Amino acid sequence: MISLEQAVACLTEQVTPIKETEQVSLESLSGRILAQDYTAPFDQPPFPRSPLDGYAVRGEDTTGTSHEMPVSLRVIGKVYAGHTFEGEVQPGEAVRIMTGAPIPVGANAVIRQEDTDYGCERVGLYASVKPYQNYCYAGEDFQKGTVLLKKGTVLNAYDMAVLASLGYGSAVVYRQPAIAVISTGDELLQPGQPLTAGKIYDSNRILINSRLQALGIPSALTLHCGDSAEQVAEQIREVSAHCDIIITTGGVSVGEKDIMHGVLKCLGVEPLFWRVAVKPGSPTLTAVYQDTLLICLSGNPYGAAANFELLVRPVLAVLTGNSRLCMKVKTAVLTNAFPKQGKMRRFLRGYTKHREVQAVTGNHSSGALSAMLRCNCLIEIPPEQNGAQEGTQVRVHLL
Amino acid sequence: MISLEQAVACLTEQVTPIKETEQVSLESLSGRILAQDYTAPFDQPPFPRSPLDGYAVRGEDTTGTSHEMPVSLRVIGKVYAGHTFEGEVQPGEAVRIMTGAPIPVGANAVIRQEDTDYGCERVGLYASVKPYQNYCYAGEDFQKGTVLLKKGTVLNAYDMAVLASLGYGSAVVYRQPAIAVISTGDELLQPGQPLTAGKIYDSNRILINSRLQALGIPSALTLHCGDSAEQVAEQIREVSAHCDIIITTGGVSVGEKDIMHGVLKCLGVEPLFWRVAVKPGSPTLTAVYQDTLLICLSGNPYGAAANFELLVRPVLAVLTGNSRLCMKVKTAVLTNAFPKQGKMRRFLRGYTKHREVQAVTGNHSSGALSAMLRCNCLIEIPPEQNGAQEGTQVRVHLL
Repeated sequence: MISLEQAVACLTEQVTPIKETEQVSLESLSGRILAQDYTAPFDQPPFPRSPLDGYAVRGEDTTGTSHEMPVSLRVIGKVYAGHTFEGEVQPGEAVRIMTGAPIPVGANAVIRQEDTDYGCERVGLYASVKPYQNYCYAGEDFQKGTVLLKKGTVLNAYDMAVLASLGYGSAVVYRQPAIAVISTGDELLQPGQPLTAGKIYDSNRILINSRLQALGIPSALTLHCGDSAEQVAEQIREVSAHCDIIITTGGVSVGEKDIMHGVLKCLGVEPLFWRVAVKPGSPTLTAVYQDTLLICLSGNPYGAAANFELLVRPVLAVLTGNSRLCMKVKTAVLTNAFPKQGKMRRFLRGYTKHREVQAVTGNHSSGALSAMLRCNCLIEIPPEQNGAQEGTQVRVHLL
Repeated sequence: MISLEQAVACLTEQVTPIKETEQVSLESLSGRILAQDYTAPFDQPPFPRSPLDGYAVRGEDTTGTSHEMPVSLRVIGKVYAGHTFEGEVQPGEAVRIMTGAPIPVGANAVIRQEDTDYGCERVGLYASVKPYQNYCYAGEDFQKGTVLLKKGTVLNAYDMAVLASLGYGSAVVYRQPAIAVISTGDELLQPGQPLTAGKIYDSNRILINSRLQALGIPSALTLHCGDSAEQVAEQIREVSAHCDIIITTGGVSVGEKDIMHGVLKCLGVEPLFWRVAVKPGSPTLTAVYQDTLLICLSGNPYGAAANFELLVRPVLAVLTGNSRLCMKVKTAVLTNAFPKQGKMRRFLRGYTKHREVQAVTGNHSSGALSAMLRCNCLIEIPPEQNGAQEGTQVRVHLL
């Protein structure tokens, strides 16, 4: 039996961060991880730009202008956003300009239309503008060559919009981990099937698959196998070539039907470790089969859930290079007592808000999945301690 | 010009929560909202169950048993998880039982195998068990008829696993909002196209689309239109029948090319409001066209982004019934000064951690999208205030 920390260290040593990359179109980049830096291929804005509707002028031509002392300039053209004015503005001249349009050569300021008579051939100005007033410089947002998005960035909507504004219709990202989930057990029915004697519904498969999805990792493949070591081994052989990790549930304890030990024998591999000193889900069994990490979790729904969070997430973090896939840990004050004594470090389901945390009351049996509803954390109760009193500071692992 | 609060109230009054439902398969329920309560159709576990590997016995038969005073019982059968034992345990009898298997009729406790001689025809017991020790009651997790998941629940992986454990292969949820995003402007190129004079890349379309996705709302449709009121109106006519909301960007200010006013005329509708007293993105224009809400945002990337967060998200929250779609608001201490005076309430981009928040320094122009990188909040600076000093308490809206 090894500690949780030893188990995590052992598993994370087995995986190396994914280096293979793929080109993915802009729309599908959410949550993906950049495999290279992205630099600005041009100044942004690419040209000096008007921030408002008005007239592009030479600021010097407007000095001292006011309502009492208007100035009149010759309007030599008009320019809209998305278009360009080909000429050059000379002294005494102006160009009608709209928001977002390039400021013509020769002009160095924009006077807002509210300070003019909106003239077409000539325009009367009622205010002065200084050179470079109302003038967005080329490169004001960023300059050509600036690294805007670094390799390793986990892309969100704003990152994607910046990539779009740089003109990138796709980006090079690391491929996503490929993960198979196999639930085992003769007693498991798939949801939707009619309930028969002695059976229960398989919830581990959907749980782990959905947790993976929630962490931004697509489901590669999910399967259910009965209690046959040969069958499970055969499935693992079939899918391992395409998988970084295979997660199984069930069959890891010490009973006759705890087939996962037999599965490893069939595959001809030795366990990395079997049993971790945590409650629930202690009998976790792990191995490596042909470069694929096998993590065999307890079949108990809460045991599987807790060990997915505690053991599998750190592995996913290393594999993807995304440390945010690990649970965050904080300390909080327990608002209700947990009286049970235990030899093993125990993780309770809880709900934390601000600096407080409440353990789920009622049924704490490891199989009771419904106690997970409305929980947002796991509460760590150290071993060899007479439970935990109300008001105790506890470590809280945020789901 | 109306206040942000008035604008939000006006828009949320226009929408009613979606009532249409659909049946969605279990695997696809993440983030969906239940349209009915889900009750347990059976006790869970559905039968008294063994929590360990051992022998199902009558506790009374083991009274006083110890290593020194062992007891021998006749083994009348064996039961694995997923199977049932059809007989009944009489005094002096035991059934070999594995974890998760139904405890046979007549037995009321399970003795763990470590406390036995693992016998096959007869078994020697070296310890006593009380009646109902190591005995998981039927309905211990939940009882038939218990409401486990309420109408309105936004489903996460744990909820989905509970639905699975109840045997539901699908669930009835509200349909998702249908939202179209139309970016407008002759100056916009789509990412991937070569950059030409006077043009910039369209980032609003991908930004709003990706933000919707990040909020769990699928992109219905995204389009780009040039500066033609007729064309934009035609697009709106085409898609409105299938959309709850149409979000446009660009063309809402006062220039000649600010076509969205013309679009509303083409559609024959009056604005609900035009202009909201916030910076950036104040010229937001809204209307209702044939039951579809039109929210026309500024074309300035940060203007569009901020008003999406401030104005559109509350509408989505009402439409879906999911209040978590609104930004959370907290107060924090500003760690750097923002000196700019303003007549309008201003929203700065910032990064907040714990009780502090830092405003993005450098280019605060509303068009500068790159300043959004690594931000996680909008900082509210009240109007008519001489900027904000370092150390000021500010309201922070979490992205």
